Amino acid sequence: MTERRSDCPIACTLDLIGDRWTLLVIRDMALGKQRFEEFLQSPEGISSNILSNRLKLLEQAGLVEKQPYSSHSRRMNYCLTEKGESFRPVLKAIARWGLRQIPGTGTEAAGDR
Amino acid sequence: MTERRSDCPIACTLDLIGDRWTLLVIRDMALGKQRFEEFLQSPEGISSNILSNRLKLLEQAGLVEKQPYSSHSRRMNYCLTEKGESFRPVLKAIARWGLRQIPGTGTEAAGDR
Repeated sequence: MTERRSDCPIACTLDLIGDRWTLLVIRDMALGKQRFEEFLQSPEGISSNILSNRLKLLEQAGLVEKQPYSSHSRRMNYCLTEKGESFRPVLKAIARWGLRQIPGTGTEAAGDR
Repeated sequence: MTERRSDCPIACTLDLIGDRWTLLVIRDMALGKQRFEEFLQSPEGISSNILSNRLKLLEQAGLVEKQPYSSHSRRMNYCLTEKGESFRPVLKAIARWGLRQIPGTGTEAAGDR
């Protein structure tokens, strides 16, 4: 987590999600994906080290929580917290902009639901 | 401009604005700032080389256009195009999230108007 750059809510939010990957992980969770391998399978091809890093930062920021997949497994499920769920309007606004302004984009992976 | 990672409108939009600075420049223009020096004065302290780079990328993407400040000046004004203006709902959604979820953020620089 970097130091706050200003008290602007846009700047502070970008300190959390202002990169090319974080909102895609949030998108995937909003679409129901829960497991590390599922995020890796998304078409953008996130690398496992970037994914690990973003999941850790999102957990630290209280947007994501992880739980054991089952009582006899070390595998983890990752889910949005209520704070993470509250990003849906941001995802929708971005998806809507992309659909209108960028030719060839499609709704299947838009998180716009 | 990087190659498209997928046809997801969120991913494609992040290819344009997925970093810590670009949306702050768009925010400043949405708030009425037009000149290079004005962007530099924003509280986040963008560096002039990052600012130059982002203005160039935004111009290439058709989100920003520059015009001479006056007929006898080399100074440029930067303004949002219609495509750039259409980012306002994204700025608003992000500002709203920050105001609700990040303590101590304030509306003065929110671009939420």
